[in-house]
Amino acid sequence: MNSLKNITILIIMSVGGGCIAQPTPRPNVVSPEVHADNSVTFRFYAPKANDVKLNGQFEKAALTMTKDQQGVWSVKTSPIKPDMYPYSFSVDGVSVADPNNTAIFPNEGFQNSVVEVTGSTPLVHTLQNVPHGTVSYRYYQSPELGTRPVVIYTPQGYETNPKASYPVLYLLHGTTDTEETWTKVGRANIILDNLIAQGKAKPMIIVMPYGRAYPVISKSSGSLRNWDNLQEFKKDFFGNLMPFVEKNYRTINNKDNRAIAGFSGGGGTTMYFGFNNSDKFAYVCGFAPGMLKNEFDRNNEAAFKDPAKTDKNLKLLWIGVGKEDPLYTVNQEFMQVLDQKKIKYESLFTEGGHTWMNVKHYLSVVAPKLFK
Amino acid sequence: MNSLKNITILIIMSVGGGCIAQPTPRPNVVSPEVHADNSVTFRFYAPKANDVKLNGQFEKAALTMTKDQQGVWSVKTSPIKPDMYPYSFSVDGVSVADPNNTAIFPNEGFQNSVVEVTGSTPLVHTLQNVPHGTVSYRYYQSPELGTRPVVIYTPQGYETNPKASYPVLYLLHGTTDTEETWTKVGRANIILDNLIAQGKAKPMIIVMPYGRAYPVISKSSGSLRNWDNLQEFKKDFFGNLMPFVEKNYRTINNKDNRAIAGFSGGGGTTMYFGFNNSDKFAYVCGFAPGMLKNEFDRNNEAAFKDPAKTDKNLKLLWIGVGKEDPLYTVNQEFMQVLDQKKIKYESLFTEGGHTWMNVKHYLSVVAPKLFK
Repeated sequence: MNSLKNITILIIMSVGGGCIAQPTPRPNVVSPEVHADNSVTFRFYAPKANDVKLNGQFEKAALTMTKDQQGVWSVKTSPIKPDMYPYSFSVDGVSVADPNNTAIFPNEGFQNSVVEVTGSTPLVHTLQNVPHGTVSYRYYQSPELGTRPVVIYTPQGYETNPKASYPVLYLLHGTTDTEETWTKVGRANIILDNLIAQGKAKPMIIVMPYGRAYPVISKSSGSLRNWDNLQEFKKDFFGNLMPFVEKNYRTINNKDNRAIAGFSGGGGTTMYFGFNNSDKFAYVCGFAPGMLKNEFDRNNEAAFKDPAKTDKNLKLLWIGVGKEDPLYTVNQEFMQVLDQKKIKYESLFTEGGHTWMNVKHYLSVVAPKLFK
Repeated sequence: MNSLKNITILIIMSVGGGCIAQPTPRPNVVSPEVHADNSVTFRFYAPKANDVKLNGQFEKAALTMTKDQQGVWSVKTSPIKPDMYPYSFSVDGVSVADPNNTAIFPNEGFQNSVVEVTGSTPLVHTLQNVPHGTVSYRYYQSPELGTRPVVIYTPQGYETNPKASYPVLYLLHGTTDTEETWTKVGRANIILDNLIAQGKAKPMIIVMPYGRAYPVISKSSGSLRNWDNLQEFKKDFFGNLMPFVEKNYRTINNKDNRAIAGFSGGGGTTMYFGFNNSDKFAYVCGFAPGMLKNEFDRNNEAAFKDPAKTDKNLKLLWIGVGKEDPLYTVNQEFMQVLDQKKIKYESLFTEGGHTWMNVKHYLSVVAPKLFK
């Protein structure tokens, strides 16, 4: 076997096989490359493209990329504030994830990649050498919706302490996200690993379901807190998901050991499910929750029926939102209603917008407050 | 709040937030759409592109797509043989995954999406309403390589039968794949769920590690069975991974209850790890294993030292390869060597090439042969 033939085989293997030949030798592209000063070089191979830009959530505007002789477009950013950021390339107007980065943002509506800029000290969501929990991909059955996926975090020690029971946080994703987004973009498992290792959060189970009542409700039915979706998902959540979790995991089954939190459309769902069922959830946390003022009364009918009882049941009602988030105003309006009804809450207004950078921060702030 | 403002908020929420505005209203794109006759319509929104093609592993050649007035490119295929296929769009020469399909092919070198054409009866890899195992994402620690990811399948009943012990299949991915490729593209968990439910395979644990000895060996160091990578990963596999698995899972720890299998570069690794350690693995299965003839002697030194002993230790040596696979010839040459050395093996030569369609089939053929 001559060496040319070997090279051919290696190339075929390196493109993962398949019957589509890729005869042109492609340059070896590294992207993203995080530098010591927290600047990052992004690269994208597209010899025939006319215009390639970088859309990164660390910048307000797209960055222009330039092409080298091999057809690799690149840009080096200024030093970036340490965090984890979604980004994509805009290739002649088409938004594309980074093919050289396996950290993909799970989403039904767009494809982004994710880059972590760690800086000199690990962040709360940085993978560290501490005891790690287990992230399990499970299925449960719904009579209406079929076989449903759910991702479940069990903390370190769950398997080795078969008599221990744990409180549960139900954690809901944003509108076009999936059941994987909270771990892959929100790093919920890593945040809890770190907070538990530091003694800052109690060991807990985290349940991350898929929030769209597909296929009964179409994937294009607007926000997760679309009324029809809410009704179907509510049936599934209380009728199938919670029983599945409480049957298959060692959970403590009372309101003081149940929390619910969610981002964006899943934040709206969180308010609808949790705030209106304060006999089941003593901890209700909205992360930039998606709400509409003209739906306040309808969506919170149960909670507002006896505000004093709701307030008494809840150990923590928490709302966080960015000052540049389009949902900032409606969340302030909702807090005014809570004030009128004398329902206590904690609020956090952060810099920035409707981003997973903010959401990771909210989880790291809230987790230490749960089940204490 | 007027309705226009609401629409703006909904759009921002539906693109997952972030500070990058996407002001142009995009048409609602469904892709892929599988029709009753097993034809599939693929769609891609790219109003400014000049040329968009579909590369699907169900076709020998790329299919031309045509653009409608809204800027959505589409193509409807002929009826496709039921299976699960990787595909991508070629947009003015740039290979892009399908942004409307969350089924992504986990890979370090390219981005494909995956479409399932089920047909009228469920396939062996089709998600069905049978008892499901658990797919766990775990981390283990390597002194040299740091915190390493591994995906572990435990069969249905593992959690509820705390005294039961199980045999273990170590299952290795192809060269540019990741620890997620065997479940997300190979559907190893679903295949085993179905075969176990049908009584065709024994309940087993499947361990799917990450096969690249990164960061010690660079991600661009050629095939997984690059010698330096093999040495580093071997240290990690036997020194860290197997002890982690056998400490944290209820495994049966002898050769007759251990199998190893792998695809492509991971098939080469399988041969090197398993065939040469027949005292530890009685089942060794190469799925289009990546090998070079001039490395036969070096890579199989231990196995060939005492061929009779190797043959006696092994309960199953299995090699499957497609007739159009570039590795077809070298695998035949390897079998000639096995014949000369009187080491028994089973072989399967299938139609098609170096594809995950073939690999899924190989797993479904091999799993019923294990641990019996």
